[in-house]
Amino acid sequence: MEHDDTQLLKRIHSPNDLKAFSKHELDLLSEEIRDQLVSIVSKNGGHLSSNLGIVELTIALHLCFDFSKDRLVFDVGHQSYVHKLLTGRDLSGLRQKGGIAGFPKTGESIYDAFNVGHSSTSISAALGMLRAFRINGESEKRVVAVIGDGALTGGLAYEALNDAGEMELPLIVILNDNEMSIGGSVGGLSTHLTNIRTSNGYKSFKKRFSTRLKRIPVIGNALSNGLERLKNRIKFFVLPNVMFEELGFTYMGPVDGHDISELVTALKHAKNIKDKPVLIHAITKKGKGYVPAEQNPEKFHGIGKFDLKTGEAASAENNSKVFADELCKLAEGDGRIVAITAAMTTGTGLSEFKKRFPDRFFDVGIAEQHGVTMAAGMAIAGLRPVFAVYSTFLQRGYDQLIHDVCLQNLPVVFGIDRAGLVGADGETHQGVYDIAYFSTLPNGFMLFSPSSVEELRAMLDYAITLDHPAAIRYNRGLLPSRKLNTEYALDEWELISESIKPITIVAAGRLLDRVIKLMTCDAKLSKLDIGIVNARLLCPIEERHISMLKDARKIITIEDGNLDTGFGAQVARCIASRQDSAMVVNLGVPNIPIEAASIAEQDDFCGLSEEKLRDVILRIAGKIE
Amino acid sequence: MEHDDTQLLKRIHSPNDLKAFSKHELDLLSEEIRDQLVSIVSKNGGHLSSNLGIVELTIALHLCFDFSKDRLVFDVGHQSYVHKLLTGRDLSGLRQKGGIAGFPKTGESIYDAFNVGHSSTSISAALGMLRAFRINGESEKRVVAVIGDGALTGGLAYEALNDAGEMELPLIVILNDNEMSIGGSVGGLSTHLTNIRTSNGYKSFKKRFSTRLKRIPVIGNALSNGLERLKNRIKFFVLPNVMFEELGFTYMGPVDGHDISELVTALKHAKNIKDKPVLIHAITKKGKGYVPAEQNPEKFHGIGKFDLKTGEAASAENNSKVFADELCKLAEGDGRIVAITAAMTTGTGLSEFKKRFPDRFFDVGIAEQHGVTMAAGMAIAGLRPVFAVYSTFLQRGYDQLIHDVCLQNLPVVFGIDRAGLVGADGETHQGVYDIAYFSTLPNGFMLFSPSSVEELRAMLDYAITLDHPAAIRYNRGLLPSRKLNTEYALDEWELISESIKPITIVAAGRLLDRVIKLMTCDAKLSKLDIGIVNARLLCPIEERHISMLKDARKIITIEDGNLDTGFGAQVARCIASRQDSAMVVNLGVPNIPIEAASIAEQDDFCGLSEEKLRDVILRIAGKIE
Repeated sequence: MEHDDTQLLKRIHSPNDLKAFSKHELDLLSEEIRDQLVSIVSKNGGHLSSNLGIVELTIALHLCFDFSKDRLVFDVGHQSYVHKLLTGRDLSGLRQKGGIAGFPKTGESIYDAFNVGHSSTSISAALGMLRAFRINGESEKRVVAVIGDGALTGGLAYEALNDAGEMELPLIVILNDNEMSIGGSVGGLSTHLTNIRTSNGYKSFKKRFSTRLKRIPVIGNALSNGLERLKNRIKFFVLPNVMFEELGFTYMGPVDGHDISELVTALKHAKNIKDKPVLIHAITKKGKGYVPAEQNPEKFHGIGKFDLKTGEAASAENNSKVFADELCKLAEGDGRIVAITAAMTTGTGLSEFKKRFPDRFFDVGIAEQHGVTMAAGMAIAGLRPVFAVYSTFLQRGYDQLIHDVCLQNLPVVFGIDRAGLVGADGETHQGVYDIAYFSTLPNGFMLFSPSSVEELRAMLDYAITLDHPAAIRYNRGLLPSRKLNTEYALDEWELISESIKPITIVAAGRLLDRVIKLMTCDAKLSKLDIGIVNARLLCPIEERHISMLKDARKIITIEDGNLDTGFGAQVARCIASRQDSAMVVNLGVPNIPIEAASIAEQDDFCGLSEEKLRDVILRIAGKIE
Repeated sequence: MEHDDTQLLKRIHSPNDLKAFSKHELDLLSEEIRDQLVSIVSKNGGHLSSNLGIVELTIALHLCFDFSKDRLVFDVGHQSYVHKLLTGRDLSGLRQKGGIAGFPKTGESIYDAFNVGHSSTSISAALGMLRAFRINGESEKRVVAVIGDGALTGGLAYEALNDAGEMELPLIVILNDNEMSIGGSVGGLSTHLTNIRTSNGYKSFKKRFSTRLKRIPVIGNALSNGLERLKNRIKFFVLPNVMFEELGFTYMGPVDGHDISELVTALKHAKNIKDKPVLIHAITKKGKGYVPAEQNPEKFHGIGKFDLKTGEAASAENNSKVFADELCKLAEGDGRIVAITAAMTTGTGLSEFKKRFPDRFFDVGIAEQHGVTMAAGMAIAGLRPVFAVYSTFLQRGYDQLIHDVCLQNLPVVFGIDRAGLVGADGETHQGVYDIAYFSTLPNGFMLFSPSSVEELRAMLDYAITLDHPAAIRYNRGLLPSRKLNTEYALDEWELISESIKPITIVAAGRLLDRVIKLMTCDAKLSKLDIGIVNARLLCPIEERHISMLKDARKIITIEDGNLDTGFGAQVARCIASRQDSAMVVNLGVPNIPIEAASIAEQDDFCGLSEEKLRDVILRIAGKIE
């Protein structure tokens, strides 16, 4: 970390410029890049560990290919910062409004092949491109997919491998295997890999790898090691030297993912194979080169701003923790309660649950489909499974929600984390579809929307008692504290104003607080006679909810979900079915990609900021007065 | 097939009664069951081949377990007829209203463990149950999942295998491998397996299987053999003797799936293994025992009524064929057009496309997620992929639709087959969610709804010219013929009546014809002055559509999609946002499971039959007059 200049980076205007660098210069460049990464992420937040781990691999890829024509497809894409630096992008505004995105974006650069954010898509997309090039007569173009070991636990990746293996197409898949470097006691595997890593290089590994396989006694231990992701024996043992080859891939590796020369050799060899797919197994170290990240790669996987020197980041109370703490409390008293996560133990706040109830905690890997169906199996056998999952990732389980949970009406509870606008992760991660797709679920699936931490806790307490499925959606960040109003059941709507008024606002979740503050504190608005309703339940919307609004002539719905098909749309539909119906104005997230920015900026873009809400309410009130 | 009595079946009141049968009686019973299966399916339609193939395996399972306590989880579930017979159910009303369902139903019998219909769910569900039993202290209960080789191509199955393998739980998975029996020239594999099958039994197979592996030169050929499903090398080679074992499963097999004694031996052995999962690889023959089905198992996989003697079934023109024929026509003139199916070549009508454009045809297996993302990769590289897929199965690709296709706004065309009510397959297969979930997609995803075969063709012609994603949804069966009205663009709504009336009906798809007939032919309705609009585009619904309705005071929307969140709900939302808005009455499919029955009966249940529509229209008209 001593070399802190950017003199070499400045010489790079296109990745082609790399080819003029000496070996020593490439090493210095790697240092420069790492300094840049640490410096930028410490200011803007972002994915640090994975980018520190992929510096040399990215350089090697650009040395061997011309990705203005060849295509480089990153899986998940949070590891593309190095690629962005090498393709001439200024990362100073990383993940900020108007700045460079934290994921590949085809709109940013010709060097970005495919937009991404969710896991396990790269092999499918790359295979599609390669098939297209063959059909288009552009068979000189090469396609490289870079996928981490964690992403391989997703079923989509397997479906693609299964399909790719039987084609005589020169797909190149790089398995960026960085898991083995985490933590200490991973049992025989860890020890053995450490030995291999510290030995002199990684040449002709196949033989050694086979030997290693036979010598490893226990593999399952890897799982009990506080790993964020369930990356079990399948990848280290089956995939590399058996499964990939049997699938029709030529397997090369493991290679040292931090040795540019070795990587270049492997890539050049792979490039020469033109009639079948190749898999290069590269071993990398997450957090490489920045001690705090090397020591705690999970913490620096996705992180907010942090102190460059100490690596310390502010840790704040958040809804995930409120939810998970309440779940622990419930689990103490009810042995049927189990918790499920799909590779997001920390993100969903479940670390404590895992520690306290290890036998009732299940990390299924990046496998939301399986998580949902397994929960259904648990529920039908008498448990009360609670699946805490990010809104955007549960999209993967939509069919399983319908087919396994809802058609059978099984008591599975979903904690929908990161619901609504999520900020810097941008369009691929927005949790703005959940209200809409939950509303389509059969059998009256109940979606709760807490507007305070008190409601969040109470709704979980309540949902766990139901004999049918239910979900509680909560935003990134922390809901305000507000005394729980027990006059209304949790599946009813709470009247906040003293009565329903000709103009009444029905607000959901975190936005209710904003409305209450506006109507109380704003000089102009506080003078208006406007009703406020807390929409505690977002679906199903029934007569008992709608009948509350019978005296309203203009109804304003406010949510941080999809405008056209969310909760407001349901309200409008119900209202429109009445004779002499009221007018309904829906406010929410427009159905277009909402790019990276702060949540406050995204709110403003969607017309949900205090100022914008104020304007709309005044305009509507003006019309009625 | 000579033994045609049901004397042995009559002796079975519970599966326990099987245990008193002699070996000879069990063989006779198998014959009786086969006769029953052929007889019933010839009358009611259903899944024949897979049930004929699983007779002995089902008997053996019931001999070894007590599935009133132990749990038997079928994958897909269309192979559960034998199980239903052995658990005392009368199949004479199979797949009919009020009769026994074509899939497992927990409501039908304590012997049915989990409702199913879609592929690849069994291992997840079974694992969930087993984990629940361990937590509940019911560890004596055993759980068996029966999964076909085709279902193993689904990513969900891999996610579950990956998770199951690391648990020290006695899960028993039966791989019901029936693919190898199809057709003749499957290359070395087929020949070799035939040799194995005709050799004396399947004892201690492991050694022999390993040898076999090394001797098989070409595997990919299996794929070019007209197989409905892409079941490639992964299952025969990798899974059995390497992958399953490496995953932590004890592998047993292959065993002869038609030899009850051998199956019982294997099952008893498996039952004794209590600290790890076991996989039994059973080789079965699809269509076993009924010559027409043995010779053409694909035809008898899912079939309508057929002639018992000849095996001949009526083949009718249908929307799938109309769509696929038009696609062939387009593909002739445009080399960028490629077709994708997820293991449904015949069902989606693509057999002819496959024959004529083999290099531009892609069967990805039961892998809708991969199908969608691969299509996105193809589109970004310049092709015009068309994915023909059943509405209900595309639910599996919801996240990929959002994340890969729509956020990037890529020109992928979806042919949504079996949209709306599907009849005898029942609740798991209803294509009633598509309008709702497509409406949630970002960037103004266009969903076309043809009301005639002429529109179906024209909409495909048009969709393929667009630079963004689009879908065309068409029902099971055949749309009527009606001259294409070119006065209106295909993405506009067509005015059928001479003008908009105070009461106006907006109808979508196949139901438009019913409305036109009613308003023309019905004695009472034909006297009323009611407007009719053909909703050619179901989303996005924009001002240009809604403004058409400005003179209507009561609007009736009619669709065979989800009532609460479908196209009618969107219309209502738009209408409700206007001052002085009209009343909107939505007709459609209520958001509850719609069980097996004929489509006509399901229409009636949903209020969409001629008679029910007539009543509603009259009632609404009565109110306004």
